[in-house]
Amino acid sequence: MSDALLDAVLGGVDVVDLGRQLRVGMPQSPNHPQFWHTLPRRHGDMVRADGGSAANDMITTGTHVGTHIDALAHVSHDGEMFGGVDAMAAGVGGKYDELGVHTIAPMMRRGVLLDVPAVLGVDVCEGGYEITVADLESAAEHAGVEVGEGDVVLIRSGWGSLFADGAPYVGGPSGVPGIGEAGAQWLAERRVHAAGADTIAFERLAPGGGHALLPAHRVLLVESGIYIIEALDLEQLAARRRYEFTFVLIPLNIYGATGSPVRPLAVTSA
Amino acid sequence: MSDALLDAVLGGVDVVDLGRQLRVGMPQSPNHPQFWHTLPRRHGDMVRADGGSAANDMITTGTHVGTHIDALAHVSHDGEMFGGVDAMAAGVGGKYDELGVHTIAPMMRRGVLLDVPAVLGVDVCEGGYEITVADLESAAEHAGVEVGEGDVVLIRSGWGSLFADGAPYVGGPSGVPGIGEAGAQWLAERRVHAAGADTIAFERLAPGGGHALLPAHRVLLVESGIYIIEALDLEQLAARRRYEFTFVLIPLNIYGATGSPVRPLAVTSA
Amino acid sequence: MSDALLDAVLGGVDVVDLGRQLRVGMPQSPNHPQFWHTLPRRHGDMVRADGGSAANDMITTGTHVGTHIDALAHVSHDGEMFGGVDAMAAGVGGKYDELGVHTIAPMMRRGVLLDVPAVLGVDVCEGGYEITVADLESAAEHAGVEVGEGDVVLIRSGWGSLFADGAPYVGGPSGVPGIGEAGAQWLAERRVHAAGADTIAFERLAPGGGHALLPAHRVLLVESGIYIIEALDLEQLAARRRYEFTFVLIPLNIYGATGSPVRPLAVTSA
Amino acid sequence: MSDALLDAVLGGVDVVDLGRQLRVGMPQSPNHPQFWHTLPRRHGDMVRADGGSAANDMITTGTHVGTHIDALAHVSHDGEMFGGVDAMAAGVGGKYDELGVHTIAPMMRRGVLLDVPAVLGVDVCEGGYEITVADLESAAEHAGVEVGEGDVVLIRSGWGSLFADGAPYVGGPSGVPGIGEAGAQWLAERRVHAAGADTIAFERLAPGGGHALLPAHRVLLVESGIYIIEALDLEQLAARRRYEFTFVLIPLNIYGATGSPVRPLAVTSA
Repeated sequence: MSDALLDAVLGGVDVVDLGRQLRVGMPQSPNHPQFWHTLPRRHGDMVRADGGSAANDMITTGTHVGTHIDALAHVSHDGEMFGGVDAMAAGVGGKYDELGVHTIAPMMRRGVLLDVPAVLGVDVCEGGYEITVADLESAAEHAGVEVGEGDVVLIRSGWGSLFADGAPYVGGPSGVPGIGEAGAQWLAERRVHAAGADTIAFERLAPGGGHALLPAHRVLLVESGIYIIEALDLEQLAARRRYEFTFVLIPLNIYGATGSPVRPLAVTSA
Repeated sequence: MSDALLDAVLGGVDVVDLGRQLRVGMPQSPNHPQFWHTLPRRHGDMVRADGGSAANDMITTGTHVGTHIDALAHVSHDGEMFGGVDAMAAGVGGKYDELGVHTIAPMMRRGVLLDVPAVLGVDVCEGGYEITVADLESAAEHAGVEVGEGDVVLIRSGWGSLFADGAPYVGGPSGVPGIGEAGAQWLAERRVHAAGADTIAFERLAPGGGHALLPAHRVLLVESGIYIIEALDLEQLAARRRYEFTFVLIPLNIYGATGSPVRPLAVTSA
Repeated sequence: MSDALLDAVLGGVDVVDLGRQLRVGMPQSPNHPQFWHTLPRRHGDMVRADGGSAANDMITTGTHVGTHIDALAHVSHDGEMFGGVDAMAAGVGGKYDELGVHTIAPMMRRGVLLDVPAVLGVDVCEGGYEITVADLESAAEHAGVEVGEGDVVLIRSGWGSLFADGAPYVGGPSGVPGIGEAGAQWLAERRVHAAGADTIAFERLAPGGGHALLPAHRVLLVESGIYIIEALDLEQLAARRRYEFTFVLIPLNIYGATGSPVRPLAVTSA
Repeated sequence: MSDALLDAVLGGVDVVDLGRQLRVGMPQSPNHPQFWHTLPRRHGDMVRADGGSAANDMITTGTHVGTHIDALAHVSHDGEMFGGVDAMAAGVGGKYDELGVHTIAPMMRRGVLLDVPAVLGVDVCEGGYEITVADLESAAEHAGVEVGEGDVVLIRSGWGSLFADGAPYVGGPSGVPGIGEAGAQWLAERRVHAAGADTIAFERLAPGGGHALLPAHRVLLVESGIYIIEALDLEQLAARRRYEFTFVLIPLNIYGATGSPVRPLAVTSA
């Protein structure tokens, strides 16, 4: 009983990990509870009669930390979420029954990488740079891909190379590169399934401007029902010039939450 | 530039979700910090000048709650972890640099389901029942599969049907069905990559016995380097008689942790 | 420059601790996030060049766990909190600016103990027993005190002696003893400042009835602006027959919270 | 049955709150888990049949955040804590059974304020300034008090006036004023019970030096068994020139922890 998928997998796959490692102290938005990990029990704390011992963990965290996905419930505009859902009423009960992260199906889809600095001829887009529609189209052409319905589009700004530096990655005075409203419209017109970037806020942040206005979030999450993936590590993917792949993302099934940490993969046959 | 995996995925896949939904109040072992989710910010709490509003989450949890994977660092025996690593020394620093969950590569492998109640002719194995090697072999034969090196083996006891009942699922007075030392040896001899079950503790718990002795954990995690996956939802898989599939599991990349909540998938071509 | 208070303190004081020790696994209401304590850093994890090392803690907890005080923001009735504050509107922003625990001034007041089992001639009031107004008056007479305006009244049911047993202390099938609506009215008429008990819910819980109806909370918190203190340890106070004392309680100053763990003291001159 | 303490209290007391309000985003040391507060349940989320509704909280926090006390278990030197306790062995089990914060008795003692900027003729001591023994002696003389055995000594640097500014309060490049080893020796010689300051680290931090060396912690906590209180608000006390008072501090009774958030009071007869 042959299965095309299993045959492909058994034929060998090459996996590129697009998720950042979750570590205490990693850069994250101050708007969200800080990621913290600790070991309540270490080996030796309590040893069973037979010599066995178990260690365990406690985690406290926001869901919009590390590499993560935004559920549609994350953002509202003028009091409404995607599909006209009343945003204040939806939160009563302390869970977003509608549009929570539990409503995002695990993804196993075509993914494409749009490598913007590669077409701009720079290593990293500047802080505050707005990635234009022309940039996106050049990057698609450079990649030899067409962005289509149901795809997951990953937009590389190069800013992810600052992740290890901590505070500069978050942005602040420098701003952060990313698409703006126009880029979001371009994605929405192509009816993509999800869009990701290698920055914390996905979209362009003006220098010093913080998160005051987030038009791309509005266009994608509120108006178009397109998920957003943030803080991706796209460096290895770009270095390997892998522009088309099977994108795998499995959100935690947290009932009623607005997002989830994730560890997406870009997979190809070996 | 055709890719066998992407072609298979684009040809259509059928995904069975093997993870339990994470909800406040779900059954979990009292040895681990309780899962808790709350919304620090709901829509309407803070509305930006342009009418936008964002809601977010705070999560507190152990890592061995819900459907989860045990890293090799989770268990030691006589002071040693897998490969003879000194268990107490490894914990100094508050992170398991070696054998932590960050060392588990994302899995995209052959998975097989051994449906034990199906071969025993019962709905659910009794509390405290030890699943024998003969049971495992019957289940493999019934499934028409052979368990081989690198596979992920999922052992269904039927106990997962009690998940919605809460306390009875955890066990206690009743005990919980599962394999014992002999079953674990059988898995280890076959050099499987990981083994999972539809119970909290993976292995058989004697009625009233609690977690006093965990020989299967010792054999798999400490002696054989085989990962354990717990609290799987195998009901749908069994109902659909899907015994062989592509198993996909992506642990969170939490540096130094002993486990991770996961949402594994069983995927086949549609 | 003499100070009467300091003179009294320097003259010697005898302190009875009315707070329960905060320990992982202690009995608490399942409605509130479980108390958990862990050490992210232990000595030896990170040693400074000079030989120094620091250990630290992480705590996760509800505020209505262990011995604790209810702020007026904790309970509403028919959509209103004390003083007619709109309860839903008050929560927008995720903090109770009005009536939160930050509005409770530290207490240094006259406290009185009403020892109900002592006047009933039992060790412990039965589960589900409603402490009557006559019981309260007998206990006041027995104590030789009159309950007056501004006092803190501690009502002992004896149920606190079950604290070490865990689950039975919480109640459930047995119910829990305590005052009902009539007892609360009696306290409100006397214009006490706060009222406490040695049980989790302060008021009588019917056998098997859970927290379905809490009339004493309504009378005290919503209608009268009287704080409630729960899960007190009154055993030592009763054993020492100390019925009148300086009551000291200092809530944590958590902005906008509905309660705080506390460690109240009953202090007398030695 | 008259009681000198209760008489003094009933005669009227004037309370100065020395604790900082606990708010999300307040300045704290990055070494400790961030304080976070959220409302899992708000009014209206779940309304009982009788119209009642309860709101509640979830807190995640280190214990060395906000105004807090260091237990003797917090610091070790060359592998030993106060009294020669083996620091690594003491941590096995995940709780400091010895010297944990549960071993600190609630305090009701003589407190004295040493107002250093007042004697130096400045508003605020400079970042990195080491408060000398001569400064302490001048401040005691200025206050008209003698520091004696069992006292709680509060050392004001004026740095607390920066608390509302956030990051500058924590220090970093500027350093933070405070006593050094000599000042700590002076306190230890006087056999004080506890010592506090209006800074996060209690002792002087060199500009840019961080927490690399903490000699005053060693002298007080490890060598002398003297508790340290940090991040006090001493502004109002100084403004009111209140140099001698009853000092009240009640640590949370967290079994095995290394510290506790506290809200200390300076109380005098009115």
